[in-house]
Amino acid sequence: MKGKLIAASLGPGDAGLITRRAWEVMQSDALWCYPVRRKGGRSHALGIAERTGLAMPNDALELIFPMTHDADVLARAWARAAAKIIPVLQAGRDVAFLVEGDASTFSTFTYLARYVQHLDTTIDVEIIAGVPSFNAAAASTSFPLAETDDTVAIVPAGYGLQELDQLLPHFDTLVLLKVKPLLDSLIDWLASHDLLDDVVFVEKAGAPEERIIADVASLKGEKVNYLSLMLVRNRNRQRGDVMRGCKQKLLP
Amino acid sequence: MKGKLIAASLGPGDAGLITRRAWEVMQSDALWCYPVRRKGGRSHALGIAERTGLAMPNDALELIFPMTHDADVLARAWARAAAKIIPVLQAGRDVAFLVEGDASTFSTFTYLARYVQHLDTTIDVEIIAGVPSFNAAAASTSFPLAETDDTVAIVPAGYGLQELDQLLPHFDTLVLLKVKPLLDSLIDWLASHDLLDDVVFVEKAGAPEERIIADVASLKGEKVNYLSLMLVRNRNRQRGDVMRGCKQKLLP
Repeated sequence: MKGKLIAASLGPGDAGLITRRAWEVMQSDALWCYPVRRKGGRSHALGIAERTGLAMPNDALELIFPMTHDADVLARAWARAAAKIIPVLQAGRDVAFLVEGDASTFSTFTYLARYVQHLDTTIDVEIIAGVPSFNAAAASTSFPLAETDDTVAIVPAGYGLQELDQLLPHFDTLVLLKVKPLLDSLIDWLASHDLLDDVVFVEKAGAPEERIIADVASLKGEKVNYLSLMLVRNRNRQRGDVMRGCKQKLLP
Repeated sequence: MKGKLIAASLGPGDAGLITRRAWEVMQSDALWCYPVRRKGGRSHALGIAERTGLAMPNDALELIFPMTHDADVLARAWARAAAKIIPVLQAGRDVAFLVEGDASTFSTFTYLARYVQHLDTTIDVEIIAGVPSFNAAAASTSFPLAETDDTVAIVPAGYGLQELDQLLPHFDTLVLLKVKPLLDSLIDWLASHDLLDDVVFVEKAGAPEERIIADVASLKGEKVNYLSLMLVRNRNRQRGDVMRGCKQKLLP
């Protein structure tokens, strides 16, 4: 029997947001592995695991995924990581890949699993879903991400303000990720759409250093962390009709 | 000291997806309360709690929230529920409201908390974030909800196909909720956009009766459950440039 490759989603940072299944896997004899940007670098996922009080097992494996958009560099990193864990899996031991947030949401796990299953199609993968950072941010700030029939867009802010202009009429909530590089112009954009009272800024959502700013305009000119997001409530959206339940109230 | 109103998000159905913090609250002396559609009706949230093996405490409180869009009927239901739990909170006992999925995402908790805090502004609320159903659906189906710089739209399908036509060019992933009332026309729409190979249908995501259908076209003419969603991957989307990190590579 080969071992199983398990994505143990640990949620955004608070050790209380780890699921019972991920917690069980962490305490099993599965080999822990965790992503870092560079050799010996800090791993957010490992940090969350350690915040539970569990000590890192001596044989835990660091997997290096450089922060780059260079497809060749990334492909080599996946291949190297897969080569490290495949022998463990083939020897019959489970491997728990520690994931910050949710393994299906902006995570490196998808790529790793593809590489592993490409190299050995007989290896099973289990993905344990986790709490995404924006759900934790919404909880911390009592911000309803979605109410009945609401629409939600999750968008890296870097696509620019013209893109947001186009999306705004369609959505009740915007989750704007990676707001750092255009923070000041984003604040102006929010002001011009009369949205400054309906936005919250969250830095390092769910982590012990989480910072919540409701007066977003006060951030102007400030250098914020790379892991910063905004939740925007489009309170005055004019909605179309919505077809409900089983009755076709309107034609599509 | 007054008790705290706690939203215990239990995730979409699998008892393993309950967070450690929600699990802790369930085992504390907090009064459980859980939503039902009608007196004595089935509560999904309570069902998840019971699937852990914990028995329902004898004093657990049923709160009735009728399935209606009538604002007056709903307001009376929130008021009645608030009136039931406020005396418990004022007597110093915590109240744990069991929530299916995540308390900030299409949940009734937001409304209840508003009513309670409206009637007694000194009562504290704790929202424990949970795993939303679509993250569990993505995990079950190895469907990447979002990869690097991806955009995601969460949309009740009932807004209609014209709305989806407008959103499609902007999103890498569409999470279509409540697909039941327009399932057949949605399948035609997916076919006309060459998306039938990039979609998965999930009924009762995360629940024991979860049903996953990759060959979505096979569902044509079928009556599906009300709690059904589709995850759609817009593989051929033409993306705009994205501004990354600290460098302003393009003007907004």
